[in-house]
Amino acid sequence: MVKITYPLLLVNFKTYSQATGKKALELAKICEKVMKETNVCIAAAVQATDIRMIASEVEIPIFAQHIDPIKPGSNTGQTMIDTVKEAGAVGTLINHSERRIKLSSIDEILMLTKAHNLFSCVCASTPRIAGAVAALEPNCCATEPPELIGSGISVSTAQPEIITETVNIISKINPSVVSLCGAGITNSQDVKIALELGTKGILVASGVVKAPNPEKVLMEMALITK
Amino acid sequence: MVKITYPLLLVNFKTYSQATGKKALELAKICEKVMKETNVCIAAAVQATDIRMIASEVEIPIFAQHIDPIKPGSNTGQTMIDTVKEAGAVGTLINHSERRIKLSSIDEILMLTKAHNLFSCVCASTPRIAGAVAALEPNCCATEPPELIGSGISVSTAQPEIITETVNIISKINPSVVSLCGAGITNSQDVKIALELGTKGILVASGVVKAPNPEKVLMEMALITK
Amino acid sequence: MVKITYPLLLVNFKTYSQATGKKALELAKICEKVMKETNVCIAAAVQATDIRMIASEVEIPIFAQHIDPIKPGSNTGQTMIDTVKEAGAVGTLINHSERRIKLSSIDEILMLTKAHNLFSCVCASTPRIAGAVAALEPNCCATEPPELIGSGISVSTAQPEIITETVNIISKINPSVVSLCGAGITNSQDVKIALELGTKGILVASGVVKAPNPEKVLMEMALITK
Amino acid sequence: MVKITYPLLLVNFKTYSQATGKKALELAKICEKVMKETNVCIAAAVQATDIRMIASEVEIPIFAQHIDPIKPGSNTGQTMIDTVKEAGAVGTLINHSERRIKLSSIDEILMLTKAHNLFSCVCASTPRIAGAVAALEPNCCATEPPELIGSGISVSTAQPEIITETVNIISKINPSVVSLCGAGITNSQDVKIALELGTKGILVASGVVKAPNPEKVLMEMALITK
Repeated sequence: MVKITYPLLLVNFKTYSQATGKKALELAKICEKVMKETNVCIAAAVQATDIRMIASEVEIPIFAQHIDPIKPGSNTGQTMIDTVKEAGAVGTLINHSERRIKLSSIDEILMLTKAHNLFSCVCASTPRIAGAVAALEPNCCATEPPELIGSGISVSTAQPEIITETVNIISKINPSVVSLCGAGITNSQDVKIALELGTKGILVASGVVKAPNPEKVLMEMALITK
Repeated sequence: MVKITYPLLLVNFKTYSQATGKKALELAKICEKVMKETNVCIAAAVQATDIRMIASEVEIPIFAQHIDPIKPGSNTGQTMIDTVKEAGAVGTLINHSERRIKLSSIDEILMLTKAHNLFSCVCASTPRIAGAVAALEPNCCATEPPELIGSGISVSTAQPEIITETVNIISKINPSVVSLCGAGITNSQDVKIALELGTKGILVASGVVKAPNPEKVLMEMALITK
Repeated sequence: MVKITYPLLLVNFKTYSQATGKKALELAKICEKVMKETNVCIAAAVQATDIRMIASEVEIPIFAQHIDPIKPGSNTGQTMIDTVKEAGAVGTLINHSERRIKLSSIDEILMLTKAHNLFSCVCASTPRIAGAVAALEPNCCATEPPELIGSGISVSTAQPEIITETVNIISKINPSVVSLCGAGITNSQDVKIALELGTKGILVASGVVKAPNPEKVLMEMALITK
Repeated sequence: MVKITYPLLLVNFKTYSQATGKKALELAKICEKVMKETNVCIAAAVQATDIRMIASEVEIPIFAQHIDPIKPGSNTGQTMIDTVKEAGAVGTLINHSERRIKLSSIDEILMLTKAHNLFSCVCASTPRIAGAVAALEPNCCATEPPELIGSGISVSTAQPEIITETVNIISKINPSVVSLCGAGITNSQDVKIALELGTKGILVASGVVKAPNPEKVLMEMALITK
């Protein structure tokens, strides 16, 4: 199993056409190349349908984008932790802004990730919500102000106080939970500021996936963490 | 691409442990074996995570269990038709009783399945709902009274009038939509009655997946359709 | 009980500040005045919290904006048909574009409205969906292309073929279901065209509620139906 | 406006037939009688449709059972804070086990209750979730293990350690948040233990609403808090 280390660059492939199926595999190979060359951990959160193919061909940590709070049995059309883990996922996003879930479901899913030893990254839109998430003890919490997602305006530049406040509130409520910085990250400078403000990595999507040259962007992001 | 023909035995793998990951592959190979020996179409609706592996190793029609009404872009944790199709799925369940969706979403998904030439099987719990579904023109509609799902009591035996009524209402509203019979199907006798009542196949889950000998059950079901 | 007759002008109060609480009561009194003067049926779909106050003071048909598919018992924070009926509602909107619900819930709610003799108006966004709705036998179906809602561009002017197609599909599937025209209705001309195209009334919101002079608009709409 | 004080007996009327419409009014008058005689705060969480009638006739704190995270505007079939407040509600339940909502919605609703000065009681099913809720700073948090709701088995008797743990975790994360004890409360003894374990009141439903003599039960519960 590929180990997750910090600083962590976690790339959300979403359902971008540039990151679906065979193209998702190509992009994951780019992530792998940069990870091997820089020794910085680069993880990819891919569509459920793509997990097995990518996890079997690429040596980077593969995340699911969502799992449902279910156990083996009579469930149709849901994503089960047992299945994504068997397919090779080592972690999962939870409560992404494009897949918000009930508080009770977040708790249930975190019980499952602990029981199955799957790395959990819960998304939060504000420092307050990050505090609530921290009380539920995920491995890490990625704070993404929704208005900045996909904007190209990095939260680390536009609203650094949100990151500082999040880092503070999380460390007060549960210092074992790691802070990631999300929303609007597009270049290495954003990553640098995010780390300086006390996070241990970033959650990025379009900034890498839709970049003209994802390898170049990822490489710069990885190197600046050194 | 594997063709879908009638009579159709559509096996819903759900998230049963007997039908997840490697075990799903084994079960799909059993379906394939029976299909090849009998020439009766046996399709499998598998978890999104398992689609690619099974579709690439087994020559039977593979269905998704659900797809979301989305297009390529900023969606996280959802199941996209483009991805399941690239992975090898040729059809999808829609609105299963364990994954009920909004009427407007059913319509959006059916627009997508038509545009992508994916076979659509919409589930309905009553003849009335089957009628509503027929107006939306899926390829087929599987009627499953929820109280019989997983009960071992076949709708074809316990409430044959539901099937008759469904067949009638569908043929009145849209005769091009095929009726399948679901809920409680466990043996070949249930299949026989279902066909006699005017459906062109069945949707079955635990009756096959959790059977002590799935191959035997499937073989008997396939042979009785001859 | 106030009777619902055609042509029907059904005004959705939504949660507009101009149509909440005491202001909702004032607006309902305007509806009542126009209804009495013109003898044209003007109904108001008001917030659950406002139903009893308005129904007890105003003699027009009062609709709920939504009801949940529940019966008396352990339900918290839901809107029950028994309660809105006791409070004086004689009808309800179902599946409005701002409150889309599952196909199975639409069916359950329609069972309840029939059992409780409450008038049902199901909303649909397209002719296809209107056809599906017609199969479920509501009293009427209001077709509102979502892109026109609140736009000030009337579907009757911009896309008359949508209304014609809806009227045709509904009368083919279930001629007992009445067609209403929704989305973008702002003046009497829109109402006139809607009726000419075969509907028996309109569903209107901002066109009346946010008009500088709601009474004038309603009066013109009512008179043109003569 | 009626003031909310501790100890607080908060009665959830749900959609019980014994607590709907006119019967809800009668039950609220019983609550008022006991509150006046004992000077112990007894609040009632009633259906949205019943808020205005009860609040205008009874002098006890009236709660909504749920509000939606919306502002005045184009929303249909939702419950708006402005409306329930104008109708006389002074507080609201949030995230009841029968109306679980997204973490992000809980946060949005709490922003609204603060801005509108409405008392907020967020429900939680476990001490962990109560901790998360505490980080969002509601006025109080009612912890109700779902398996005990309506069971007649009081959490204070069956699992006192859940209450103790909840009180501890809440006071650690945010000592300004008050703990209430819910689930299975049926008699004064349950109330006594709940207060001894550190909560400042209870959330009760069937134990009062479905009691043969609600006044007697409420009176005993109120007196034991003295």
